[in-house]
Amino acid sequence: MTTSTALLLADLTGVAVFAASGASAAVAKRLDLFGVVFVGVVAALGGGIFRDLAIDEVPPLAFADWRYAVTAAVTAAAVFRLHPQLARLRTTVLVLDAAGLGLFTVTGTLKALDAHVPAVGACMIGMITAIGGGLGRDLLTGEIPVVLRREIYAVAALAGSIVVALLSTYGEATTGPLTGAVVFVFALRLISLRRRWSA
Amino acid sequence: MTTSTALLLADLTGVAVFAASGASAAVAKRLDLFGVVFVGVVAALGGGIFRDLAIDEVPPLAFADWRYAVTAAVTAAAVFRLHPQLARLRTTVLVLDAAGLGLFTVTGTLKALDAHVPAVGACMIGMITAIGGGLGRDLLTGEIPVVLRREIYAVAALAGSIVVALLSTYGEATTGPLTGAVVFVFALRLISLRRRWSA
Amino acid sequence: MTTSTALLLADLTGVAVFAASGASAAVAKRLDLFGVVFVGVVAALGGGIFRDLAIDEVPPLAFADWRYAVTAAVTAAAVFRLHPQLARLRTTVLVLDAAGLGLFTVTGTLKALDAHVPAVGACMIGMITAIGGGLGRDLLTGEIPVVLRREIYAVAALAGSIVVALLSTYGEATTGPLTGAVVFVFALRLISLRRRWSA
Repeated sequence: MTTSTALLLADLTGVAVFAASGASAAVAKRLDLFGVVFVGVVAALGGGIFRDLAIDEVPPLAFADWRYAVTAAVTAAAVFRLHPQLARLRTTVLVLDAAGLGLFTVTGTLKALDAHVPAVGACMIGMITAIGGGLGRDLLTGEIPVVLRREIYAVAALAGSIVVALLSTYGEATTGPLTGAVVFVFALRLISLRRRWSA
Repeated sequence: MTTSTALLLADLTGVAVFAASGASAAVAKRLDLFGVVFVGVVAALGGGIFRDLAIDEVPPLAFADWRYAVTAAVTAAAVFRLHPQLARLRTTVLVLDAAGLGLFTVTGTLKALDAHVPAVGACMIGMITAIGGGLGRDLLTGEIPVVLRREIYAVAALAGSIVVALLSTYGEATTGPLTGAVVFVFALRLISLRRRWSA
Repeated sequence: MTTSTALLLADLTGVAVFAASGASAAVAKRLDLFGVVFVGVVAALGGGIFRDLAIDEVPPLAFADWRYAVTAAVTAAAVFRLHPQLARLRTTVLVLDAAGLGLFTVTGTLKALDAHVPAVGACMIGMITAIGGGLGRDLLTGEIPVVLRREIYAVAALAGSIVVALLSTYGEATTGPLTGAVVFVFALRLISLRRRWSA
């Protein structure tokens, strides 16, 4: 598997988990099929569209490659159909969101570095790629943006993007360490949520 | 009348009806003249600015061609002055919005295809062009986004954009069939609203 | 001091005052350190990112030059630490916001003119640069957007941007007159607020 194939797979997996998080949030708001798919697609593609505009990759990948939109829409529609079997939607949203946060932090930061954005800017773009979709989802569904709640969220993405920038600087941005960075962000976010739950 | 003149006229008509829809929504919220013009301009130009950023037409037409801003601002100000005579603002907003939806779906999809965006992406950009302004209007005025309400809205735009993409593929994207596509989206939206009203 | 150094200083001062305005608004909403820094950074950099996307300066300066992000984050964090000593946060937000409005109106309009945007578009981009950050701040903290309240706000920015465009046309866009334009917008905004207060 080449690096670019791995990156595409990571990106599409992030699209799917954010689509599922957006769709779950929309189901919790009792939206119909079209509303659920719409919120799912915004959550899945919003961060990446912003990233691509910022690094001048136009049209953004979400429009240039049909697999992004189809992955997002099909996942969101599947969540709508299956949701009677998905208990505890709130927890589902949070866990999927944490997984997407890790995946998009890593792919977003890598793409910005590849586009020759300086390290500080690349970390910011990586973080925005990761938090942008969830922000769109929360604005659309009228929730307090997750990024403003008390648990670690944007900071987990920022920490992950710094790890990626360091790996890239030392020539270690290969599949193994990058997968570690995804897991690092995911774990940091979940631990933060759990400590708050038990606190 | 050349194609590009026809496209410009369709685009400016869309700007005017969306400006009127935004201004009517702002009047209903009892905003003053400046607030009404601001919401009208956002509703009129928001979708097209996003479209132009996505297809790398910079500066966006809304900034490059003064007729866009002036059409939007003058229309919104006129609505503000005339509103005591405009009864039933809510219905007015919905009908104008449906007209804008049809016009922007067609012009947005055509522009994206002209910029060599693949068909799926061009349909998405056409849809976002059409729904973006109304989304901005609803976020600013604190309404539930129309795109998330139960009646067909984004789907009407998406269906219209698919029609435009098909017409373009088969070399039939001329004034007649494209006008039909505008009417198709407008009618689909209004029928959806009316059925819901009578249901 | 060269013109570009003066412009950079004006821009970074605008970043700092908008960061402080966003941070003060977030403190008033009782957000924690990370929330306060996040809202501060959005308020400080949001308008400029939009401006740079619109004039195709990519990556936007906020990502290309680390001093922007660091200025915004450090200022916001300082406001968080100092806020027990900052009485009357609401007034603080309004005054800082007025200062940022003046600074960003002038730098935003100049940059758009430098990028060969026609005058009407350059004025709009200058205005959006100035009001964009505050709009993001208000959407994030759930306030009615300041731009829609009754006092002069966007109009002050628009008037200032027209002054800048006129100065530029007549070759008078030098440090002195441009500083006057900053003060003009700032004063116009504050007078509008004060008249409303005493009215």
